[in-house]
Amino acid sequence: MNQPGFSFEIQHTDGQTLARRGVFTTPHGPVDTPAFMPVGTVATVKGMTIDQLRATGSQMILGNTYHLALRPGEEVIRDLGGLHNFMGWDGPILTDSGGFQLFSLARMTQVTDQGAVFRSHIDGSQLELTPERAIAIQEALGSDVAMVLDHVLALPASREAMEDAVERTRVWAARCQEAATRDDQAQFAIVQGGLDPELRSRSAEGLKELDFAGYAIGGLSVGEAPAEMYTAIEATGPHLPRHRPCYLMGVGRPIDLLEAVARGVDLFDCVMPTRNGRNALAFTAEGTLRLRNLKFQRDERPLEADCPCPACRHSRGYLRHLFMAGEMLGPILLTAHNLTYYQRLMAGARAAIEVGNFAEYRKAAIAGWSEDSPAEGAES
Amino acid sequence: MNQPGFSFEIQHTDGQTLARRGVFTTPHGPVDTPAFMPVGTVATVKGMTIDQLRATGSQMILGNTYHLALRPGEEVIRDLGGLHNFMGWDGPILTDSGGFQLFSLARMTQVTDQGAVFRSHIDGSQLELTPERAIAIQEALGSDVAMVLDHVLALPASREAMEDAVERTRVWAARCQEAATRDDQAQFAIVQGGLDPELRSRSAEGLKELDFAGYAIGGLSVGEAPAEMYTAIEATGPHLPRHRPCYLMGVGRPIDLLEAVARGVDLFDCVMPTRNGRNALAFTAEGTLRLRNLKFQRDERPLEADCPCPACRHSRGYLRHLFMAGEMLGPILLTAHNLTYYQRLMAGARAAIEVGNFAEYRKAAIAGWSEDSPAEGAES
Repeated sequence: MNQPGFSFEIQHTDGQTLARRGVFTTPHGPVDTPAFMPVGTVATVKGMTIDQLRATGSQMILGNTYHLALRPGEEVIRDLGGLHNFMGWDGPILTDSGGFQLFSLARMTQVTDQGAVFRSHIDGSQLELTPERAIAIQEALGSDVAMVLDHVLALPASREAMEDAVERTRVWAARCQEAATRDDQAQFAIVQGGLDPELRSRSAEGLKELDFAGYAIGGLSVGEAPAEMYTAIEATGPHLPRHRPCYLMGVGRPIDLLEAVARGVDLFDCVMPTRNGRNALAFTAEGTLRLRNLKFQRDERPLEADCPCPACRHSRGYLRHLFMAGEMLGPILLTAHNLTYYQRLMAGARAAIEVGNFAEYRKAAIAGWSEDSPAEGAES
Repeated sequence: MNQPGFSFEIQHTDGQTLARRGVFTTPHGPVDTPAFMPVGTVATVKGMTIDQLRATGSQMILGNTYHLALRPGEEVIRDLGGLHNFMGWDGPILTDSGGFQLFSLARMTQVTDQGAVFRSHIDGSQLELTPERAIAIQEALGSDVAMVLDHVLALPASREAMEDAVERTRVWAARCQEAATRDDQAQFAIVQGGLDPELRSRSAEGLKELDFAGYAIGGLSVGEAPAEMYTAIEATGPHLPRHRPCYLMGVGRPIDLLEAVARGVDLFDCVMPTRNGRNALAFTAEGTLRLRNLKFQRDERPLEADCPCPACRHSRGYLRHLFMAGEMLGPILLTAHNLTYYQRLMAGARAAIEVGNFAEYRKAAIAGWSEDSPAEGAES
């Protein structure tokens, strides 16, 4: 489906990998791909003003349908002019469908062909999320890209359960498509299938026939080994239309981003830079730094000498002090730094693809990191 | 004492009140008075980056000697280039002496003529603060203005205890003066004496003889009625040298600032705009707004239509949502707004003094506020 206001132009393809440099255009402006979307769970990327968020180099952000439907409710957001106006972000916004949060957060979720019945993690009230309702909420929010409702399974799961989830995800995707009423909102389908290559390809092929504006790889970064995740991406990619943007949901570490870009992924989101930043972990070209460590007490150096973010106008000693004293400014500054780091990493990847040396860029970046990497990688 | 790098120039005096418009110059730049100093307890005004703090219109900020000596310790700050460099604020900084925190926070404080022995509110360790030590810490911090160590009493207190505290405060002030070794740091004395006019005048006269670079009125905003506070200011002012800046410590509500300016006060500090901001209370020209109130759920208006702060680029409905969802951005935005409100109030007062209509300005401002005012007013 080609919608007015949306396009995806691939400007460069890498010679040695499947990496590509593109521009995904939305009614709220363009996104240079490969792109990383910061997570703005309840209409705010935690601790960032809009100006600060823009200054990290972010072009497109993610909002969480499940969270926003609970607080403040999609009707409040619609009445206050939609999600863009509500939060003051005039760039592109993608909203997930709530499928992942049903899996990770909601209690006593019961999934039937009709939809999912669950209890709110806020107040325990019973709610139902169907494909039609997931789209209705996202249309009320007015995001540029709406994700279809998918059925995410905890791994490991039985083959039968996995097949059921793949088929249900396909049927639900068709129902989401059917439910759409807004011309200015595109829908992305979500490929499931766990770590099984055959199920991944079956899921991708089934969704490809429905011709979505973009395709996501879901159900990963839920505890599997990185190599398993990369294998699942490799099993999925060839079955997706290459002229559509490919979005790897909830991933990940800097190395995961580069490995996925090499496998043809265009879009990412993850809470890793923001959540880790709030917990005193900084990403740098030389690896991660745990800022509470005593060794930083009198360290006069910034996190990264060439970084333009507001945290890097201070010493590591000052940043450590903020965390030790429990000051809000610590999480704020490290969030800004980590997002800036992720965006600079992606900008570097785009530039490398343009000049045909992405494989070298990836190799050099990986060589620069120490082995001290955080384990956390799932979206919230 | 006239120190190089410091001056206080009175440019305008009001015809109907004791208000004056001046410039207090420090080695880190000028401060237009009357001025409000945001409180940066442990080398950060909570939630504000330096750019955001500057954008509120603040020129001079306050740091807390007691807090900084505990965390991270003045030696760490000295080793990282002093407080200005440590926190990245290149404007003027005033540090209090710790006298008020000994009174309000520290446990089991024992005051003798030598100094105060107390237990840290962080870890209970026993510490001693003498006049000499209070100055040594502040010299290590490198603030532009150091406050002398004073003896703050809880009210009501016996006449004898009050007289003792006044005399001890005078002797300690002289010892602080004696202990000074930095040319680029000025000292302000602190007048005590509770609500007793005779003791206030005795304290002020005794300190005036020592010729300090500035004079503070301390021991107020500790639970007394506003009228009592205003009376204490009136009892003190005539006994202070008018060519020196007069600083009312830990005050206060917007109305208190205007009433004190009318009584000749030049400098203020208070946690009220920041602490209340973190707790969802916004100051506006029409009075205070409690943002958690349901009536703001769909309110499209900004807090103040003519306010340039980042909060006022959003609706009240969005700000309410941030607080209801427990998001950091709520406290951040309301801190920025409330500081901007205080600075605009003071800028208005300065402009009114310049054109000779401060009394009208005060009257109009007070008429604009509703009666919904917060009770909280003490420094932390």
